[in-house]
This record gives sequence, structure tokens and C-alpha cells, in this order.
Amino acid sequence: MPKCVLAFSGSLETLVAIPWLKEHRNLDVVSFSANMGEEADLEELGERALLAGAIAARIEDLRDAFFKDFISPALRALAHYETHYLLSTALSRPLLARELVRVALEEGATHVAHGCSGRGNDQVRLEAAIQALGPHLKIVAPQREWELKTHEQKLQYARTKRLSPGNDPQIHGKFKYDRNLWGQSIKCPTLEDPTKPTAEDAYTLTKSPMQAPDQPEEVEIEFRAGLPVALNGKRMPSVALIEKLNAMAGIHGIGRADMIEDRLVGFKSHEIYEAPAALCLYTAKRALEQMTLSRESLQVREGLSTAYGRCVYNGQWFSDLREALDQFYERINQSVSGKTSVRLYKGTATVIARSSEFSLYQAPPAGSTKDGELDSDAAQGFIRVWSLPLTAEARRKKA
Amino acid sequence: MPKCVLAFSGSLETLVAIPWLKEHRNLDVVSFSANMGEEADLEELGERALLAGAIAARIEDLRDAFFKDFISPALRALAHYETHYLLSTALSRPLLARELVRVALEEGATHVAHGCSGRGNDQVRLEAAIQALGPHLKIVAPQREWELKTHEQKLQYARTKRLSPGNDPQIHGKFKYDRNLWGQSIKCPTLEDPTKPTAEDAYTLTKSPMQAPDQPEEVEIEFRAGLPVALNGKRMPSVALIEKLNAMAGIHGIGRADMIEDRLVGFKSHEIYEAPAALCLYTAKRALEQMTLSRESLQVREGLSTAYGRCVYNGQWFSDLREALDQFYERINQSVSGKTSVRLYKGTATVIARSSEFSLYQAPPAGSTKDGELDSDAAQGFIRVWSLPLTAEARRKKA
Amino acid sequence: MPKCVLAFSGSLETLVAIPWLKEHRNLDVVSFSANMGEEADLEELGERALLAGAIAARIEDLRDAFFKDFISPALRALAHYETHYLLSTALSRPLLARELVRVALEEGATHVAHGCSGRGNDQVRLEAAIQALGPHLKIVAPQREWELKTHEQKLQYARTKRLSPGNDPQIHGKFKYDRNLWGQSIKCPTLEDPTKPTAEDAYTLTKSPMQAPDQPEEVEIEFRAGLPVALNGKRMPSVALIEKLNAMAGIHGIGRADMIEDRLVGFKSHEIYEAPAALCLYTAKRALEQMTLSRESLQVREGLSTAYGRCVYNGQWFSDLREALDQFYERINQSVSGKTSVRLYKGTATVIARSSEFSLYQAPPAGSTKDGELDSDAAQGFIRVWSLPLTAEARRKKA
Amino acid sequence: MPKCVLAFSGSLETLVAIPWLKEHRNLDVVSFSANMGEEADLEELGERALLAGAIAARIEDLRDAFFKDFISPALRALAHYETHYLLSTALSRPLLARELVRVALEEGATHVAHGCSGRGNDQVRLEAAIQALGPHLKIVAPQREWELKTHEQKLQYARTKRLSPGNDPQIHGKFKYDRNLWGQSIKCPTLEDPTKPTAEDAYTLTKSPMQAPDQPEEVEIEFRAGLPVALNGKRMPSVALIEKLNAMAGIHGIGRADMIEDRLVGFKSHEIYEAPAALCLYTAKRALEQMTLSRESLQVREGLSTAYGRCVYNGQWFSDLREALDQFYERINQSVSGKTSVRLYKGTATVIARSSEFSLYQAPPAGSTKDGELDSDAAQGFIRVWSLPLTAEARRKKA
Repeated sequence: MPKCVLAFSGSLETLVAIPWLKEHRNLDVVSFSANMGEEADLEELGERALLAGAIAARIEDLRDAFFKDFISPALRALAHYETHYLLSTALSRPLLARELVRVALEEGATHVAHGCSGRGNDQVRLEAAIQALGPHLKIVAPQREWELKTHEQKLQYARTKRLSPGNDPQIHGKFKYDRNLWGQSIKCPTLEDPTKPTAEDAYTLTKSPMQAPDQPEEVEIEFRAGLPVALNGKRMPSVALIEKLNAMAGIHGIGRADMIEDRLVGFKSHEIYEAPAALCLYTAKRALEQMTLSRESLQVREGLSTAYGRCVYNGQWFSDLREALDQFYERINQSVSGKTSVRLYKGTATVIARSSEFSLYQAPPAGSTKDGELDSDAAQGFIRVWSLPLTAEARRKKA
Repeated sequence: MPKCVLAFSGSLETLVAIPWLKEHRNLDVVSFSANMGEEADLEELGERALLAGAIAARIEDLRDAFFKDFISPALRALAHYETHYLLSTALSRPLLARELVRVALEEGATHVAHGCSGRGNDQVRLEAAIQALGPHLKIVAPQREWELKTHEQKLQYARTKRLSPGNDPQIHGKFKYDRNLWGQSIKCPTLEDPTKPTAEDAYTLTKSPMQAPDQPEEVEIEFRAGLPVALNGKRMPSVALIEKLNAMAGIHGIGRADMIEDRLVGFKSHEIYEAPAALCLYTAKRALEQMTLSRESLQVREGLSTAYGRCVYNGQWFSDLREALDQFYERINQSVSGKTSVRLYKGTATVIARSSEFSLYQAPPAGSTKDGELDSDAAQGFIRVWSLPLTAEARRKKA
Repeated sequence: MPKCVLAFSGSLETLVAIPWLKEHRNLDVVSFSANMGEEADLEELGERALLAGAIAARIEDLRDAFFKDFISPALRALAHYETHYLLSTALSRPLLARELVRVALEEGATHVAHGCSGRGNDQVRLEAAIQALGPHLKIVAPQREWELKTHEQKLQYARTKRLSPGNDPQIHGKFKYDRNLWGQSIKCPTLEDPTKPTAEDAYTLTKSPMQAPDQPEEVEIEFRAGLPVALNGKRMPSVALIEKLNAMAGIHGIGRADMIEDRLVGFKSHEIYEAPAALCLYTAKRALEQMTLSRESLQVREGLSTAYGRCVYNGQWFSDLREALDQFYERINQSVSGKTSVRLYKGTATVIARSSEFSLYQAPPAGSTKDGELDSDAAQGFIRVWSLPLTAEARRKKA
Repeated sequence: MPKCVLAFSGSLETLVAIPWLKEHRNLDVVSFSANMGEEADLEELGERALLAGAIAARIEDLRDAFFKDFISPALRALAHYETHYLLSTALSRPLLARELVRVALEEGATHVAHGCSGRGNDQVRLEAAIQALGPHLKIVAPQREWELKTHEQKLQYARTKRLSPGNDPQIHGKFKYDRNLWGQSIKCPTLEDPTKPTAEDAYTLTKSPMQAPDQPEEVEIEFRAGLPVALNGKRMPSVALIEKLNAMAGIHGIGRADMIEDRLVGFKSHEIYEAPAALCLYTAKRALEQMTLSRESLQVREGLSTAYGRCVYNGQWFSDLREALDQFYERINQSVSGKTSVRLYKGTATVIARSSEFSLYQAPPAGSTKDGELDSDAAQGFIRVWSLPLTAEARRKKA
């Protein structure tokens, strides 16, 4: 039987997919489960896959790769989608695709399978990336293909296969989470209605601002070339730094986003995200850039952040465009080094100070009044030149 | 003697300018003081100008005009400069210029004078606008021209003219404020250092988040065609609505911005702003737009908000470009009507719900699981087409 | 039997579709054929449709509507796709969709059918527009659905229905043309290879530059508010003006484009276009804009021309975004009035002079040397201010 | 006496500047004359400078550096200003500035002087670059400072200094040329009027299209990573290649631009340029990019070409932004290799074929009709998804 590598999260869908792929597609399943910061028990996941009939279960800690190859360039670019989404899930998908293809090669598999449904962005991101990296691989999306439309049907199918569904590590209470180092998205049928406030118990990474500590906490984040290297003066490995910052900011209720978003597949959805560390880092880095990048650099950078975010959101990670944008951002971040002090308090990360040896800000000379350093003649000359186009238009209007 | 209309704020600079313009420029001064929401006592200002030698003192309440002709289009456009500056002072300058030119015509004046220094943006904005609207007028900028470089020299000059400086309505304690309906900027020599936190007593429109009420407050803002028309279901005139919202949000510590900014005149400055109502309205309107504008409209709108903000910041209000952008924004705002609920709490305005009769969001049909509405074939077809460019690039890379 | 309105061009595909829709979809066909400048004999088309079994044949001259509602806004916007494609076919599709929906309403039809294949852009444009305007209508695309894959199969099917294929008005020799007032696209299997020169006999609207007259011809085009109103001083109706200019420029070999283009459906195609009048008008209008629009207006206009072109190319004509862009362009074109003289010669339209009562260009004062009008102090002041950001960066680099 | 390095072109202005700098600024002059492709006799220039009183005369062939460090990145970026200006002079100014600063260091000079007037862009470009690279240097601009306002006054001053003006290598007949490898700009008082055709005798690099050969000439240009490496299959050094192409294309009348342009100093000017090789290379490279870059890459590239051009035009060459853009363009040009065939004929360079081993274009499979390769289901699925936003807006409009 040909082999299929299945992205296995432990959900009912991916569990049931194991016997289904065998029965309906005649495929031996190798499960693949990765840790990108989701806090699932990978060992246990592997065992469940084997119990469900997988011929092998691969597990892998990808957190370092996730930070280095995906989070880092996105953070350098301050990539975002529609301002508020900092791309946690979207960034993890090309990594998952890359690893699925790698494992498929190692295992001699001919197929790759995933548990995405037909309504979301992830199917596009995963399949686009898999086709790019492993065009020889056939992709199976059981969720789009099978007849098991309802939860009950899937449970029923599991029972006929004598499978106990077990815990879905992505489900807590009535919510489903897609979590990784960079944040999480939260799904729930009752969350859909954007005209109603989101239930407080949906959030698991952040405290309610109203329940957050009454004392603010200050954290100094140090950046080198656009990436964080230390918290409060203490250097630490990147993954540890982000985990630490997730915890610190989460306690203060920071990093929630409750937004309407335009999905790649053409409709608007209501999305709930938590990304405590990511939001702090964006806030802090943006303040540092204001100090260290020229006006023109900031303008171009800003426009490209949107382009970069679109690339990621739309599943175009493995493209020449993204790689070329990375080159731009690596260069422009060379001077984005320094320290930003951020106050964490009741749901908000506020920049209160920033400093950099690459600062372009120049304090007025001591002892001077603030005004007057730019000599008056220069100002007048500038105004004269600057006003020329306006006065030409105004003269025309009068005529 | 020819006449000069002087923008008179009651500052020591503009007070001293009255005798100086007479003595050094041989001009009779008509003072002009306007209320754009700064809460100065205009009557008293007029009297002081007359005492200082002005031949006439004009005072005017411009708040309605400010909202209608300047705040409204900027809000429709969600105009901003470098993300955080919502343009309070920048928007007021073209209005001031327009009125100075109008008064100069009415008074038969040949000159217009202002109290801006040679280091800021306002001199550019004012003079560009005056030249556009009244190219026949000569502009005098005493601050750039006179020898009275220090505060002490100005005081000394006042004394020789037997003028008592009186209260500068823009100065409170060691800070200087430029305030209007849309917010205020705060200046102080000791504020300059961006590596240090800003002193809490600089802020006058907003409470410290740490001192703000422990109970959150919810406010429902209703928009029609992109402009606010009601608070908590209560319709009110625009100016009153903004004043009310300034007060409400200010109590909760909302609307502060502490940023490094690129001045038009080429250097970076450290700026402190407060704009409680403006920030709430931007936040609420943006959420409503996400619900009512298409993805493509949002993308184009976003880019133009930056262009619009640059227009305003750079003193190019009276330009064909700004007027054409207004046309775009009026049309695109036709469907930006609805209600946004915002929670005010400890420094942050958070959108918790939004609704609109023009919503483009469609809830999944009742009883359905969320996924599956988009039929699988459509999704697969889309993915197939969407992936074509990526796979073409990937195929090339392998070759 | 329910009715179906079929876009009928007289091609073998649309002819065969008439009996096919009856036989396989159980639909009575009303054919719809329109003149947008393609020079087909509409009367004869109608007769052929009836002969093929249509229950009614509608024919319509849409040239004025095409100019007024589609060409005009695109020309105001200088809309283009990938620089060289001036959107002739793309602009005609939303008009065709609009009329198909209107006729369907008038005829009480439940279906609309078209002859586009599954590989092109037109199916997307037509169907997107039909769904927007007539969401109640079902769309049939026989070319995508039937088994008649080859030309021979279609001929065979025609024979079984006793239909004589007749002349396809879009086919001349081995080429197929989609022509209208604004230009034409040319298809031929042998045209596909972009590594070989295009055969000269493919072109029907333009002479070969090498065969064009040895004498250049000058034409003065007058614009009012961005639209052409006169040629060589002679006012004429818009459609006549464009037809005249198509002829004039075509003789001189002007308006060809031979390009690789990114189709909406994800792959690159090799496209051949002719658009003599459109190219002349773009060239002339662009030169006039350089004279009458400010630098900032030109910059924003340029970016939006691309956005507008994408809207058109991608089938998003009936969108709020397009309507809002129209508002922008109507305003900005208010000063785009004047005359441009264009030299037509051997394949190229070259602007040789332009003039406008709204010109922003100011000739240096007579008797002056050209240089020196801007006084030196102003220049120096401007340079001082302008260089500040660069010197700040340079100072940092040294440190 | 302190030393001053003077950019010496041999013009009357720069000649007269030599004694003037000594007399009025108390400076010893070292003249600096460079060959960037202007075909001046540098040896003779040096002798004239010495005769005029320079204490030393430096001459240098900078053509290779000009190509490598300035033309190459601009060509990779397809940088332009207002579409038609390919930046010949603008690109040469930062190189001149760099060399002036270098020579000043070598000579121990404290001052740098140039012959630009107060009305043009070049003063800004030169001084901005000199301040960035040599902030310790004082800049003298005699043209802006002296009393020698008219040509006659300068001649008179020369006579008092017993200087014979000699030939200005930039002046031919009534025209003044600023020429280099990448093209030239042409100045003449009578050229100013943009409502009149430009006199034919202004052009020296290009034949009149009407006088050009009746036989077209084809040239195949080969690019590697975005730069030209061979003409008609013959590899040659870059400078030689451009000189050759300038000659070939010039004979056919290719490369003229006659445009109204927005100067950096705020007003519109009428500019005449010739850039035969540059225009051919842009045309050929653009066609190759259409074949080798993805749609998304082309879109982002296009926007950045404008940003890059503005950087160059506005004198911001020595900036982090330009360097970061270079990184982007180096990466994106990695696949811009291949050959473009261009037909040179009567004023126009027309792409007639292009090929690349990195082509993203895929010919339809042999034996297939062109249409039908994209399966119908994929097309339908795509249309379904693509139309969702439009139908949502349309549904709203009806409601």
C-alpha cells in the first residue's frame, strides 16, 4: 500500500482520518505531529495515532525552526493582515507544509493529508506550499472529501473502528484553539456573532484586563537588528524569551484581538486571537523604528509590511517575492537595535521610553530654547520652495 | 499705516508682536483669536490685544466650521501621520489660515502675522495655506525675524512697552499646550528626552490609566456615512458629541500618544499628544469599516489614509489632491453606517461589538457547523487556480 | 420551458450552444448580440440565431453606452493592466453582463449563458458581474460543461442539428479577434510562442510600421475634464472621434501590444492587442496631466491607475471601490483640459506639444536667464532642510 | 590658504569660479574633472583649469564606477521619475559627490565647490550627498552667491582675470548638454516653451526618426541577473556594451523624451532628454521580467521602481532606504536572465521576442486546443470564491 503522511493534531477529524485513509483511499498512514509551541503532549499524540492504525508516528519539536525561519522574518517586517492579525497560524502553515514534504520524502510516501476544512484559509496555505515544495505528492483533504459531515457521524465512524476519540488537545470547553509560540486563534460557533461581546472564558493566554493585576509592570525589551535578544537586561534564547513574554503580558491581559477579517476564500469571518508576546514585540519594535529609521524608510517599510502580511496570509510564503522582501527587511533592520521600555497594564502595552545607539533623534543643544536651532533663513527658504506647487494650484483656481 | 492681521493666542510671543509689528514693521495690528475648542476666554483675549495696542480685536467661535470642514473629512479618511498622530493641530492650521485671509480681506489688511517659530511644522502649514488663499498678502513671522531670542528678552521688551504679559492660555505649569476640539499637543523642554518616561503631570485631558476608574464603561457610538451621530443612542450635535466623548474617554485615560515623529522640516522630534475622542472614533470607525467595506476597498482606503494624513501634516490642505481624495472618501463612506460598542477602561478603548445594516459579514446558517458552507469543489478549484503561480516558481527553482 | 439569454457572437461555439441548451439543459434560448464597435452585421447574426433555434434574437447598438459608462471612467483613470494592456475586452464584459441581466429581466429568463472557455479571464468577469447584478439568474457555460471538446466535435454536433456553421465574425484566417471600439485582442495557437515574433498578418487594425506612410501626420487632440472632445479642432461625438482616431492611428501602425500577461486565473499567457485610438489618447492625456496636475496628484493618480486597472481586469467593475475611485478621478480630471499635439509616425505616437488654460507650468520671465528666478536664499534654505535626514543617517554611519 | 576642490566642467561658470574662489573666498582651487561618458577631453580641461589659476587639476575616468555602482542598481530596479526620465544626470550626481569628497580628503581640502545654479535639482543632489559623505566640508556654490548674474558679467570678469573662456564642452550651438554614459539632458532658453515642438537640431545622440534608416535593425540583448551582458550574442564589457547600444539605437532615433517634469524644488520645468541605450535596456528588461517574475512580484516591483526613482531624483542616494531597496532588487533579479529581441526602427524600440531558462510562461501542451487545460471544475470553483465579495456588496445594494 502506498504511504500517506498525515498532519496529526489529535483532533477527532485527524484521528478518524487514519482508518478512513486506509479504507477509502487505500493508504498506509504515517502520522506527523509537531510542537510549534502548542503545549500538546507529543508522545501521547504519537501513541494515539498508532492505536488508530498509523504504521508510524513521527513527532518533532519545531519551535526553534519556527522562530528562526518564520517568526523572525515576519517580525523584522512587522507583517500584519488587516492591522490586527499578527499571523500566528498563517506563519505556522508553511513550516508544517515544509516538514510534511520532508517527512514524505524520508518515508517514501506518495500522499500527504491534512485535516483542514473547505471553508478556511489553512487548506489554501498548506496545499499551496505542499504543491510548491513537493509537486510530486498527492494531497488528500478528508474533511473536504468524506461523507462524515457532522460531529456525530465522525464519532459514529470512530466507534465502528473501535477508536476512542480521546482528548482533542485543541479543544477546551466549547472552544477550539489553534495555538503556537506566536499566538492562538479561537473558534466557537457562538463566537461568530460579531454584534455581541466575546465570552470572557474563550481566552486562555490572557487574563481579562479587568482581572489583571492592579500594579503595572515594566519590561525593557532589547532588540538587535530587529529581533529581541533580552528582557529586562537578561539575555535569553529566542523561544524562551517569547514564552516568557507570553506569560508576562498574558497576565496583564495583553494581546487580544477581536476582529472581522477578510478570508482568502472571499468572505468575512469573525476572528478572535491572542498573541501577548507578538503584540508587545510589535509595539516595542515600532517605537524603536520611529527612532532609528528615516521618514522615507518608514513610509516604504509600512507599505511593504502590508505586502508581506498578505504574502503570509495568502499562503505565498515559498515565493521569490517573500524572499526578496526578506532581503529588504534584513538590511533596513540593521539599525533597529536598542531598548524599548514597555508598561504592561490592564490590557495594554504602552511604550514609555526607547533608546538606541543608532538613534536618528537629536536632542536640542543644552541651554537652548527648543525653538530656533533651525535657522530662520533655512525655514523661510524651505517654506518658499515647499509652497510653490500649492500656490501654482491656487493661482489657477483664482484665474 | 497698513494693517496686519495677527493670529493672537495670548502667548507672550503674540502679545509682544503687537507693539513690535508697529515699531519694526510699521503696521497697525488687528488681532484675531478663534475658539476651535481650546477653552480660552476669547473676550479676555480681545481685551488684552487692545491693551497691547491692537487697533481692533476680532474673536470668533469656529468649532462648528472646524468639525464640518476639517475634522469630518479627516475622520472619513481615517487620516493619520505615522500611525499615532491624529492631526489635531495640523487640521486646525488651514482653518486658521482661511480665517486670517478672510479677516484680512474684510479689514483691508495687507499683511498677516503669526507666532510660529522657525523650527516647527506650523509655520509651513500656515504660510503655505495663506499663500494659496491670499497670494496678495505679505506674511510676517516675528518669531523668526526679531532679535528677541530668549524668554527674558521678550519679557524685557514687554516691560519697555509697559505691557503686563498676563496669563498665556496655552501654558500651564511648565508645559505648553496647543489644544482644540480634536486633541492637543504638549510641549516642554524636559519632555524632549525620549529615553525617559513622560511626566504624568503633563497630561490634562486624560487621567493616568492607573488613576482611572476601576469600573469599565461602555459607550455605543453610532455612525452615519462615516461620521458620528449619537452616543449611547442619544443623538447630539457633532461638536457636543466630541466634547462629551473627550470627557468620557479622558476620564478613562484614553487617547495619549507618546511618539517620535518626523517633522516636515526634516528632523525627528519627541511629541506628546492627547486625543481622547479622536482615538475612540478612529477605533470604532475602523471596526465598522471592517464589517462594511470589501477587502479591496479596505486595502485602497488604507493606503490613501496615509496619503491624506501626509497632505494634512505637510500643509497641503488647499490642494486639488485633497479635494479629490475627499470625493473618494465620501463615496466609500456611504455604507459606513452602524453602531460600535467600545469599552473604555484603564487607558484603552476596546471594540467589543459592532453592527450595521450594511454589513458584509454573513453569519453561517443556523444549525450548520461553521465549516462546510463553501462547497468543497469550489474550495479545491480555488486552491488549484490560486496555487498556479507558486507552483510555476517552485518548478523553476527545482530545475 | 424556462428561458435562457445567450450572449451570441456568431461563433461556432455560441451557435452550437443554442440547440445544446435546449437538448441538454431544457432551455429556450433568446440570443443577445450587441455592437460595441466590433463591426459585425447584427441583423445577420440575429437571423442565424433564429435559424439555429433561438425563440427570439435581440440585437443592440451599445457603442454610446460603452463609451459613456465604461471607456470614459477608464480613460479618466488612465487605467491599465501591467502597463501595456488598455483593457479593451475587459471593459466590455461588465457592459455585456449588465445587458444580459437586463434582457433576462425583460424576457423573464431564468438563465444566462455565455461562450467563454474555462481557461480565460472573461468567464470570471462575466459571471462575477452577472452574479452581482442578477443573483437570481443561473449561469450556464456550455464550453466548460459539454463534451464537445474539439472543433471537429462541435462541427459534427452542428451537422447532426442540420446547422451550417456560417462565418464566425470573430475569425479571419487563422486568427480569432475580440474587437470593440477600444481595441481588440488577437488569438491564434501559433501566436502563443513568445520566443518568436508575431506574424504580421495577425494585425488588422494597424498597418505594419514598416508599411506605414513615410510622411508623419500630426493630430491635435483636445480634452475637456479628461475626455477627448475634438480632433484637429473639429468637435465630434465621442464614438465617432474614437473611430476616426482608430483609423488615423491604425494607418500609422500605432497601438500594438505584444506582451506576456498574468491572467486572473493564475498563469501567464502571451497576448497580442491592437488599440490605436486608446494608445493615442493615453499618451496625449498623460502629457496633459503632467502639465495640469501637481506632483503629489500625479503620484497618487499613478498608484490608483494600477488599482483601477486591476479592478477592471479582475472583473470587479460593479464594486463600491470602483465607484469611489471614479469620484476621485472625476474631481482630479477637472483641470485636465487642453490640447495635445501628437505626431503619428511609423508605429509611434509622440507628443510634440501641449497647452492648457489650467497649466501649472510657468515659463521663466522674459529676458531672464533661465536660472536664478528662485532666489538663492530660498534654495539654500530648502537644501538645508531637505538634507537633514540624510545627514542624520550619515552621521550615524560614521559613528 | 585653505583648499577647495571644484567640480570643473570647463563651462564659463566653473572657469570663472577658479579666480573668484581665490579672490572672494580666499581659497586655493583644486579642479576635479571626470569622465562619466561625456566625451570631453579631460587632459585639455585640466590644462585650462591650471591656466585659470588652479593649484592642481585632477582628472579621472569614472565610467566603470558609474556603471557598476549607479547605473546597475538603477537598471535592476527599473528606476524612473515620472515614467519618462531615466535619471541620467540624477544618477551621476552622487558619484560626483562621492569623488569630490574623496579628492578633498586626499588633498586636505576644507571646501568643495560646484557650478550648479539655484533653480535646479543638481544643487540639492550634490550638496545633500556631500553633506552626507563629508559633513566636515564647507560647500561653496558660486553661482548662487556671486554678483555675476549675466553671461556678459561673467565674460567681463574672465577678461579682468585675463582668462579666455575657451570652449564649454557642454555647449553646442545654442544648446547646453549634460551628458554621460546613461544619456543626456538638453537645455536652451527657447526649449522652455512646452506648447511648441522642440527644435530638431537640439538632439545630438539620436537621429530624427524621420531621418532614421528605412530598414529596421534587430538587436538581441542578453541579460544575466537583470544586467546586460551581450549584444547579438557577443559578450562585451558593460561600458562598451552601453556605448555600442547608444550608437545603434541613436541611429534609429530611439531614446528621446520631451516632457514636463516636477522638479524637486517645487516647480514644473520642460525637459528634453536623450537616452538611447537606457530606453532599449528598460524596454527589453521589462519584457523579460514579465516572463520571469510572478504577478505579485511585478506589482511590488513596480511600486518600488517609483520609490527608487524618487530616491535618486531627490538626491537621497546615500540612504539606508536605497541600500535596502538594492537588496530587494538583487534578489528579485536573480531570475531575470534571458534574451530579448528588440526591433529598432524610426524612433521606437519594440520587443518582438523574449526567452529565458527561468521563464514562468508555460506553453499549452502540443496538440491541445489552447483552451481547456485548466479543468472546468477548477475554473468554476475559482469563480465561485472570487465572486463572493462582489455578490455580498451587490446583495447589500439591493437591500
